[in-house]
Amino acid sequence: MTLAVLRLSHRIIRDKRITTHLALTARAFGASEFFYSGDHDSKIEESIEDVCKQWGGKFLITHIGKPLKFIKEWKKNNGVVIHLTMYGVELSDNLQKIIEILEKETLVVVGGAKVPGTIFELADYNVAIGHQPHSEVAALAVLFDNVFEEEVRKKRFSDAKLEIIPSERGKQTKKIK
Amino acid sequence: MTLAVLRLSHRIIRDKRITTHLALTARAFGASEFFYSGDHDSKIEESIEDVCKQWGGKFLITHIGKPLKFIKEWKKNNGVVIHLTMYGVELSDNLQKIIEILEKETLVVVGGAKVPGTIFELADYNVAIGHQPHSEVAALAVLFDNVFEEEVRKKRFSDAKLEIIPSERGKQTKKIK
Repeated sequence: MTLAVLRLSHRIIRDKRITTHLALTARAFGASEFFYSGDHDSKIEESIEDVCKQWGGKFLITHIGKPLKFIKEWKKNNGVVIHLTMYGVELSDNLQKIIEILEKETLVVVGGAKVPGTIFELADYNVAIGHQPHSEVAALAVLFDNVFEEEVRKKRFSDAKLEIIPSERGKQTKKIK
Repeated sequence: MTLAVLRLSHRIIRDKRITTHLALTARAFGASEFFYSGDHDSKIEESIEDVCKQWGGKFLITHIGKPLKFIKEWKKNNGVVIHLTMYGVELSDNLQKIIEILEKETLVVVGGAKVPGTIFELADYNVAIGHQPHSEVAALAVLFDNVFEEEVRKKRFSDAKLEIIPSERGKQTKKIK
């Protein structure tokens, strides 16, 4: 099973931090790949790669030029596409189905500015995390947290150089050889 | 019961979108107030107020000058303070306790750049949403989603001018008189 995230229409400067947070959230909550369309942004790629070096795990970040073509290819290879949108059907009404889907190669698509209508058509499931405006970062985290539950938050990452020792006060870390 | 969020050390430009996403996530997932320290940013305040006018509900956004003093006052008035930090104790080990806490006036503190050590001391609970670096937006959403579960995502907001009609394809909204 591959779990990947595609962030649409990244814009350098304006979206820098949101896209970084999206990639970090994807990694922390169980995805193994992150794709983004829009502007190519080598700084974000470097910063995510730095996090992976320090905190471990295998996680790839890749810029793609043609997101619609990419999604079509994904489906052609028997992959499933979930599009997160406040206009979709609520997660809680579809959770069991989504948990089953994730046995397949799954691509979770999150919008940037102006998601083209075609995405709603191409997606196998248009899923809402509530129907209020909030954040694609919040939506992605809540989706994955509902699917994987607390296990994903306690997962240890391979080849980490640094781990946190959970603590009631202050910051404790442990270096790993 | 009041549920409020305090975002520390907002910086205009650099944090604009993350702080906006934090405020929207706070509102969508059940908080009634949002405080932020650091730079005063009237544009963010206006954009959050616009969302409330359109999508309903009572939600206040307020800039505060002295966050440490503010947190101390909150505690003096018998309020409880939860600080979200990747260094804290994991949510799942403390969920029941946190659900009970939320009967009181609760302030959830999320960091910006360089959270002062005093915050770790002042907080009643330093809570981690996993121990990997990700996003304060993700952390806030997952905390609230675990506490309130799906109910919060289906809540209707009072005085909304617009509501979404959940849909398998496309965007459907309903205007409300």
